[in-house]
Amino acid sequence: MLSLIDNPPPWPNGARCAVSFAYDFDAESLLHLYYPTDSARRLSLASTLRYGARVAIPRLAAIWRHFGIRQTVFTPGWCVEHYPEAIELLLEGGHEIGHHGWLHERVNQLSRGDEERVLEAGIRAIEKATGAPPVGYRCPSGAFSEHTLDLLIDYGLRYDASLGGHDIPYLVERSDGRAIVELPHDASHDDWNQYVHLKDANWQVPVAAPARARETFQADFDAAWNHGGLWTAVFHPFVSGRLARAEEQVRLIEYMMEKGDVWFATCAEIAAHIDGLVARGEWTPMVERLPFWPEPPEQVALPSR
Amino acid sequence: MLSLIDNPPPWPNGARCAVSFAYDFDAESLLHLYYPTDSARRLSLASTLRYGARVAIPRLAAIWRHFGIRQTVFTPGWCVEHYPEAIELLLEGGHEIGHHGWLHERVNQLSRGDEERVLEAGIRAIEKATGAPPVGYRCPSGAFSEHTLDLLIDYGLRYDASLGGHDIPYLVERSDGRAIVELPHDASHDDWNQYVHLKDANWQVPVAAPARARETFQADFDAAWNHGGLWTAVFHPFVSGRLARAEEQVRLIEYMMEKGDVWFATCAEIAAHIDGLVARGEWTPMVERLPFWPEPPEQVALPSR
Amino acid sequence: MLSLIDNPPPWPNGARCAVSFAYDFDAESLLHLYYPTDSARRLSLASTLRYGARVAIPRLAAIWRHFGIRQTVFTPGWCVEHYPEAIELLLEGGHEIGHHGWLHERVNQLSRGDEERVLEAGIRAIEKATGAPPVGYRCPSGAFSEHTLDLLIDYGLRYDASLGGHDIPYLVERSDGRAIVELPHDASHDDWNQYVHLKDANWQVPVAAPARARETFQADFDAAWNHGGLWTAVFHPFVSGRLARAEEQVRLIEYMMEKGDVWFATCAEIAAHIDGLVARGEWTPMVERLPFWPEPPEQVALPSR
Amino acid sequence: MLSLIDNPPPWPNGARCAVSFAYDFDAESLLHLYYPTDSARRLSLASTLRYGARVAIPRLAAIWRHFGIRQTVFTPGWCVEHYPEAIELLLEGGHEIGHHGWLHERVNQLSRGDEERVLEAGIRAIEKATGAPPVGYRCPSGAFSEHTLDLLIDYGLRYDASLGGHDIPYLVERSDGRAIVELPHDASHDDWNQYVHLKDANWQVPVAAPARARETFQADFDAAWNHGGLWTAVFHPFVSGRLARAEEQVRLIEYMMEKGDVWFATCAEIAAHIDGLVARGEWTPMVERLPFWPEPPEQVALPSR
Repeated sequence: MLSLIDNPPPWPNGARCAVSFAYDFDAESLLHLYYPTDSARRLSLASTLRYGARVAIPRLAAIWRHFGIRQTVFTPGWCVEHYPEAIELLLEGGHEIGHHGWLHERVNQLSRGDEERVLEAGIRAIEKATGAPPVGYRCPSGAFSEHTLDLLIDYGLRYDASLGGHDIPYLVERSDGRAIVELPHDASHDDWNQYVHLKDANWQVPVAAPARARETFQADFDAAWNHGGLWTAVFHPFVSGRLARAEEQVRLIEYMMEKGDVWFATCAEIAAHIDGLVARGEWTPMVERLPFWPEPPEQVALPSR
Repeated sequence: MLSLIDNPPPWPNGARCAVSFAYDFDAESLLHLYYPTDSARRLSLASTLRYGARVAIPRLAAIWRHFGIRQTVFTPGWCVEHYPEAIELLLEGGHEIGHHGWLHERVNQLSRGDEERVLEAGIRAIEKATGAPPVGYRCPSGAFSEHTLDLLIDYGLRYDASLGGHDIPYLVERSDGRAIVELPHDASHDDWNQYVHLKDANWQVPVAAPARARETFQADFDAAWNHGGLWTAVFHPFVSGRLARAEEQVRLIEYMMEKGDVWFATCAEIAAHIDGLVARGEWTPMVERLPFWPEPPEQVALPSR
Repeated sequence: MLSLIDNPPPWPNGARCAVSFAYDFDAESLLHLYYPTDSARRLSLASTLRYGARVAIPRLAAIWRHFGIRQTVFTPGWCVEHYPEAIELLLEGGHEIGHHGWLHERVNQLSRGDEERVLEAGIRAIEKATGAPPVGYRCPSGAFSEHTLDLLIDYGLRYDASLGGHDIPYLVERSDGRAIVELPHDASHDDWNQYVHLKDANWQVPVAAPARARETFQADFDAAWNHGGLWTAVFHPFVSGRLARAEEQVRLIEYMMEKGDVWFATCAEIAAHIDGLVARGEWTPMVERLPFWPEPPEQVALPSR
Repeated sequence: MLSLIDNPPPWPNGARCAVSFAYDFDAESLLHLYYPTDSARRLSLASTLRYGARVAIPRLAAIWRHFGIRQTVFTPGWCVEHYPEAIELLLEGGHEIGHHGWLHERVNQLSRGDEERVLEAGIRAIEKATGAPPVGYRCPSGAFSEHTLDLLIDYGLRYDASLGGHDIPYLVERSDGRAIVELPHDASHDDWNQYVHLKDANWQVPVAAPARARETFQADFDAAWNHGGLWTAVFHPFVSGRLARAEEQVRLIEYMMEKGDVWFATCAEIAAHIDGLVARGEWTPMVERLPFWPEPPEQVALPSR
C-alpha cells in the first residue's frame, strides 16, 4: 500500500499506531460559559450536562477498566472541584487528568493576564485533587491564543492537544526555541458534530446513529493503523457516554483490539514517548513555531461594496 | 456483555426494558409560539401542523390499537380545547394525556407567576376534557425553569418527563425533600432533528429517510433492552405521524415485540411503578436536587476582547 | 397490512397510488428574489440557476418522453417570458405549466392588492405562452397568505399544490363554501433539503448522494403505494436535473413502473379526477376552511425575561 | 441507456469522460479573509489550514505521482509566495498552478479597479514562481463578478473554472464576442460541505465518513462516465488531504482507473482540448454571454409587510 505518512514515529513494541480516547469532561462549565449571568434557569441543559459527571464517567471508567486501558480526561478546574467523585474514579483507574481551563474559557477572548489567571486556577485545582500539576493541556473551544504556548511552557506543561497541524505528534516551539509536544486532532475525531443537539447551546444537527458516527471515527483509526498515525478523540462524557454510544464505543475498542498492534496510552505517555524519541535522536518531528501570524498580511484590496 | 447501567430498576414481569412512545401533540401552538402576532398569514406552516391533529393522531391511535399498546401524549391545553376529537380518540384508546403548557410556552422566559398561570390553564383544560387532572408534565422546548419543579409538586403532578440526567428514571427533589419521578430522554429520542424542515420555524435540516432515522431510535432501544433502561421518545404527531414514518414506526414496534420482554406502558404507569419500588424500598434511584445552580459561579476571567 | 390512510380516493384503473413529479422551475427568479437590487454581480449563483432552464429542462423532458409520462411544472411568469424554448419543450411533451408567481414572490409579505397583481401577471404570462390560463398554483417559498385561496378562486384556478394537511388530496374552502382541490406535499418530497448548497442563498447542507436522497423520496412513494396515497414531488430542475440526480430519477421511475399500478399524471389531471369523484359523490374528501386563524389566540402569558 | 447529455464533446482517445481533481489550495488565506484584523489570535484555525500546505500537498503529490496523473491546483498568490516548497513540489509533479486571487478575495465585493489589482497580484506571484502566467482561474468563494470575465480576457487567461452552467465545458463570452472556456462544477463536487467543521469559520456540519462522502463524488463521476461529461472536483488540501480522506481518494482513483476510458488531465489541458475542437469546428459548445442580468428585472411587487 502507498504510504501516506512520510515520517511516522516509531511506536512502542512495534505498534502500528497510538490510540488515546482523550475526553473533554466539561459538565456544566458549558452552561456557565454560554450563559454566564443566566445559567440558573436552564435546568434542561444543566441536567443533560450533569449526565456526563454522574452517569457517563462511571460508565466509561467501567468500560476502560474492562479493557484494561487508560485514558486522558481533560477537564476544567471548576469540574474538578465540583465533581470530586468523578475525578476520584478516574484516578483510581489510572487515567490522566488534563488541563481544560477553569470554566471552559475561550482564552483567545481574554487578555494575557486573564489567560494566565485561568491557567493557574486550573493547575491549582488539578494539583489539589491529584497531588501533581497537569502534564498536558487542551484548549477549550479551539481558542488557542497567541499567548497560550508561551504560558504553557512557562508553567511547565509538557504537551498540548489542541491544534490540527498533522496526523502524528509534532513540536510547537516559541521564539526562544523551547518547545512542547503537540498531539493533534481534527474535527473528524470530535463527537460533537455527530451527536450534539442542544437548543440552548444553539447547536442543532441531526443526531447520528452510533453505528454511523463510528464510521467517521473508525475511518480515521484505520488510516492511522495503516500508516503509523496517532488517533486521539475529542469525545465528551455527556455525549459519547450516553448508553447506545457507550455500547458502540465498546464495539469500536473491540474492533481496535482485534486488529491488534495498537498502543493504547494516555496523552501524557504518548508525549513522553515522543520526547524520548527526540531526546535520543531516534526521530525528527515536524516543528511549528508559534504564533504563526503576529501581524495580519497587507491586503491588496478590502471589500468596498 | 459488560453491563452499562449500574443499578437498573426491576421492571414488571422481568421485562428487559420499558418503552413509552411519548408524543408531544403541539398542533398550531407552535405557530402561535413562533409568531404570536403574525400567525394569521402563515397558512403553509399551519396546514402542516394541523396534519398532526387531523391525520396523524387518528393514524397513530389506529397503530397503537392494532398492537394493543397505550401511550402518553403530552399536549398544550389550547390543543385540548381546539382538537376535542383527537383527545377523545386518545382517551378511547386508553392513552394518557400529559401536561405540555397552555400554548407551548417556554416557561423559563416567564415570571414565576406567569409560569403558574400557564400550569393552571393546562391543568384545567385536561381536567375538563378527561375528568381528571394530569399526572405528568413535559416542559415545552426544554425550557424547564428554576420554579418548575416547585410548581409541579405544589400542583400535585407525579412525574416530569423533561430532563436528561440518566437513562433510567430518577427522582428530582426540591429543598424540602419532596420529590417526583423524572422520566428522562435525550435528543437522540427526538424525531425533530431527524425530520423537521420548516422554513417558517427557522428549522432546516436534510429530511432523513424513515429507515435512517430509525437507526438512531433503535440503537437507543437496543441499548435500553440490553442494559435494563427506559426508552421514551419525544415524537410529534405532525412529524412521526406522516405516512412513511408511521409505516416505519409499525416496523419498529414489530421489531420491539419480536425481541420480546419489553414493557410497553404509559409514562404515568412507569412513574407509578417507580414510586412503588421506592416506597417499598425495592430500588434506590438517583436523586437530583433542583435547582442545580441558583447562582452562577464566580468567574476567574470574562471575555474582554 | 394495517391500513394507514382512512379513506383513500379511488384512483383511475384501480391504481394503487397517484404520482406527479411536480417541478418548480425557478431559474434566476430566486436570484432576483434574494437580491432584488444586487443580482447583477452574482454570476456564480446565476449560472447555477440558469442550468435549470438551459440544461435540466431539456434533459428532464427527454426522460419523461422516454417513459411516456407527463408532469406539471410550476414556474414564475418571469421565467415563462425569459425561457420560451424551455416552455415550448414542455408544451410539446404535453406537460402542464402551473402558476408559481411572477418572480417567485413570497405573497404573505405583500398586501392583498400586490398579491393580486402578482397573480394576474403570472396568469397573463402563462396564458400568452400556452394559449390558456393556468389550472393550478403552487405558492413560492411556502408563503401561502390569508388571501391566497380567495384570490385563486376569484381568478378561476382549480387546484392548489402548496399546503401539507394530508397525504391525499383534499378540499380547501373559503367562507362562502366555494372550494378547490388541494394536492398536498411535505418537506420529505422536496429536493432542496437533500441537495442544495448555495452560499449566496444562505443555504448550506451536506450534499446528499443521489442514492441516499432517493431513500427519502422512495419511502414516501412506497408508503403511498401501500396505502393509496398521492406522491407529488417538489423538485427543481437546477437541482434534480443535475446529471447524477437525473440518472437516479430514471432509476426511481423504473422502480415505480416495475412496481406497477401507478397512475402517473399531471396535477391538473389529478385535481380533475378528484373533482369528478366529489361531483359524482363517489368519494368524500377532508375539507379545510381557510384561513385557519384570522386572529392569534389570547395568550395566558408572554415572554417577560 | 438513455443519453442524458445532448451534445458531449469528443474526448481524446475515445475516453468516456474527463477527470480533473482540481484543488483549491487556500492555506491561511481563509483565516485572513475571515479575520482581516484579527488573525493573530486564531491559532487553532491557522494550524488546521497550514496542514494543507505542510502535510496535505506532499501527500497528494505522492498519490498523484503514484498513479501517474497530473492535476490543477488553484491557489492565491499569497500562498504561492508563502509556501514555495509546496509550489515546487507541485511543479515537479507537472501539475498546473491556477489563479485563485491574491488572498482569496471575494471579488464581487470589490470595485472593478480593486478586482483588477487582485488579478494582477495573483498573476505576478504565479509568473514569478512558475515562469509563466496562469492559464486558468477559479474565483474564490463563488464570487464571480460582473467584471470578472472581462478582466480574465484582458489579462489573457484561457479558461475559467468557477461557474455551474453545465455538466460539460462551454464558452463564456463578453459583449465583443470574445470568449474563454468554462469548466463548470457543482456543490456536489465540493469537499467542503461533506467534511468541514470549523467553528471559527462559522461552518458546522456533521463530518461525513470518507466512504459516505465518496458516494456523492462517485455518483457524479459515474454519471459523467456514462454520458460523456466532465468531472472536476473542488477539493481542498487541508480537507481532502487528511489521512483517511486521502486513503479514500486513493480508492476513488483506483475505481476510476479500473472502470477505464477516463481522461485524467489538468484543467489547462481540458480547456486546450475544447479550444481545439471549437477551432477545428469539430464540436459546438453551449455559449453563455456574461453578465447575465446587468439590471435587476422590474418587480410587480416588493415585500411590504
